[in-house]
Amino acid sequence: MAVIAIVGSGMMGSALAFPAWENGHEVRLVGTHLDREIIDACIKTGRHPKFMRDFPQGLRYYQIEQLEEALEGADLVIGGVSSFGVEWFADTVLPKIADGTDVLTVTKGLLDGQDGSLKPYPYYWQERLDALGKRLNLCAVGGPCTSYELVAHDQTEVCFCGRSMKALRRARALMATGYYHISLSTDIVGIESAVALKNGYALGVALTVGLNQRERGLDSELHFNSQAAVFYQAVREMGKLLKLQGAGEPENLAVGAGDLYVTVYGGRTRLVGVLLGRGLDIDEAKKELNGVTLESLVVAERVARAVRIKAQRGEADLNDYPLLMHVDDIVTGHAPVDIPWERFTFERQ
Amino acid sequence: MAVIAIVGSGMMGSALAFPAWENGHEVRLVGTHLDREIIDACIKTGRHPKFMRDFPQGLRYYQIEQLEEALEGADLVIGGVSSFGVEWFADTVLPKIADGTDVLTVTKGLLDGQDGSLKPYPYYWQERLDALGKRLNLCAVGGPCTSYELVAHDQTEVCFCGRSMKALRRARALMATGYYHISLSTDIVGIESAVALKNGYALGVALTVGLNQRERGLDSELHFNSQAAVFYQAVREMGKLLKLQGAGEPENLAVGAGDLYVTVYGGRTRLVGVLLGRGLDIDEAKKELNGVTLESLVVAERVARAVRIKAQRGEADLNDYPLLMHVDDIVTGHAPVDIPWERFTFERQ
Repeated sequence: MAVIAIVGSGMMGSALAFPAWENGHEVRLVGTHLDREIIDACIKTGRHPKFMRDFPQGLRYYQIEQLEEALEGADLVIGGVSSFGVEWFADTVLPKIADGTDVLTVTKGLLDGQDGSLKPYPYYWQERLDALGKRLNLCAVGGPCTSYELVAHDQTEVCFCGRSMKALRRARALMATGYYHISLSTDIVGIESAVALKNGYALGVALTVGLNQRERGLDSELHFNSQAAVFYQAVREMGKLLKLQGAGEPENLAVGAGDLYVTVYGGRTRLVGVLLGRGLDIDEAKKELNGVTLESLVVAERVARAVRIKAQRGEADLNDYPLLMHVDDIVTGHAPVDIPWERFTFERQ
Repeated sequence: MAVIAIVGSGMMGSALAFPAWENGHEVRLVGTHLDREIIDACIKTGRHPKFMRDFPQGLRYYQIEQLEEALEGADLVIGGVSSFGVEWFADTVLPKIADGTDVLTVTKGLLDGQDGSLKPYPYYWQERLDALGKRLNLCAVGGPCTSYELVAHDQTEVCFCGRSMKALRRARALMATGYYHISLSTDIVGIESAVALKNGYALGVALTVGLNQRERGLDSELHFNSQAAVFYQAVREMGKLLKLQGAGEPENLAVGAGDLYVTVYGGRTRLVGVLLGRGLDIDEAKKELNGVTLESLVVAERVARAVRIKAQRGEADLNDYPLLMHVDDIVTGHAPVDIPWERFTFERQ
């Protein structure tokens, strides 16, 4: 039996409590300062407020003030913060984890630099660790996995990535179950980029759903030609972006395409895309989310900004990314939806 | 104004009458000997029995006995037969088309050889033309497009492929509309393989829908983690198969992934997959289709057979294709559904 501490009780971090517990480990779920009510609810009801199933009995719940206690003796620390908690995680959590511990983060996203670079979070955290002279084995999870379906024990394929194959194998040994299947890759840039890039593209596919509703009525049947047309272009652009990241291995694109597939159907990114397709502008669409800032929009914006810089530097051609550019024009430039279908065509001699 | 003759009044061939007509061309729709009732219905009602929208007024309908009349002066002949009509098209139609005419076929599929080769239909037809000493410009359509959504004027991206870029451009000029967007490629093997390969894989994704229904009830919500898991593995295997075909260009995989996306949601391939996932065996699932032989099953079987031969010859590794092999075991070997999830994982150092 190992001890697994999950820091951040958002949906994805919390969902990993299920496979961890079912493998016989002690599981400690720690809320951040933003999760206080979630932890209170877990203690009171034995269930995460957003899940349809109780946590296993025996799980331990901790408020952020008890972080040290929760980390004590942990064999694996799961970082369950969103991309808005990346710095907080570096400032508050990483320094408190014992040297040599394996860390597995679920945070998806990329940081864009002024040179058009796109850096995965594990790279950022590694820099912070290096500055502290601290040694942790950073691993991260990517791949098509929605938290509530993991909780439902749906068959799920993910990929753990990190520098150390040994640490990856240890993390897999703790977490793999009959429904949670784990690939391993030392290509951090490849896996983290693939699963981040899909964000703007999932929004793109959802636009077509809204466009069809605008034309044919809110109750009209889903149309798939136009969804598939954007999906195909998304796969093209993601493949090119991965090459731009120096991560053109086919597994990365496959993981990204799978993640795109699941994100098209999941939650708020789809909702925003559908609303935009129906004719709302980005501010109106965001208002429908009650002011929640969407991680996926932030990531899409960063990727587009990086690609524009790369293009200015002559390292990328914006003509290769008409879909990304249009999504960015909508999201950051308040442009109306007008999908450039004809620009998705190609001629190959 | 050009004259466009469509031979074969199945759904896809017939759907192309819309963009053709809307571009101002004379359109002649010819039924095969199997389409007699369809043509009768078109003459009587002005609508294809399977479409929700009338044909444009002015379309001309022909029974197979009037084939020569319909082909007279045609600038473009669209071949609209299914893969079961490939030889019939070669025997009956190709010889009657005037030399030098452009031909565009919608038939999707591959022919497998005893050496494990997989040949696109345009190659087969070209051999037949060469034997006749006849010169036609063979082009073919691939990409994500369901006929009924094309009829509904949904935005659609396809790719025309063929040996002659000039002929491809002529065909595009006749057919492209504001909703029908056409890429061009001389990589016939790449495009035709990509859109054929997706058949077995779409069935694979649909299996998970049925599996979930079996576990959670017929009315349960769709689950996407497991669909995405198979989708990701499908993209991986399709990428490898395309390389095996010498067609590893990224556009091909993107077209295939888009086509897979649309096929997962479309019609009978999905239905069979869902039924198999629920626990029916392949004979029982086929019975539910009232004895209709499914093109997609035939294609999947051929591809699997070819890959097994390639593996025997040391030219492929069956471990690269656990999903295809399982689908084939189900479809041709009557195996029960038992998706080898763990075999979809990889380790990349």
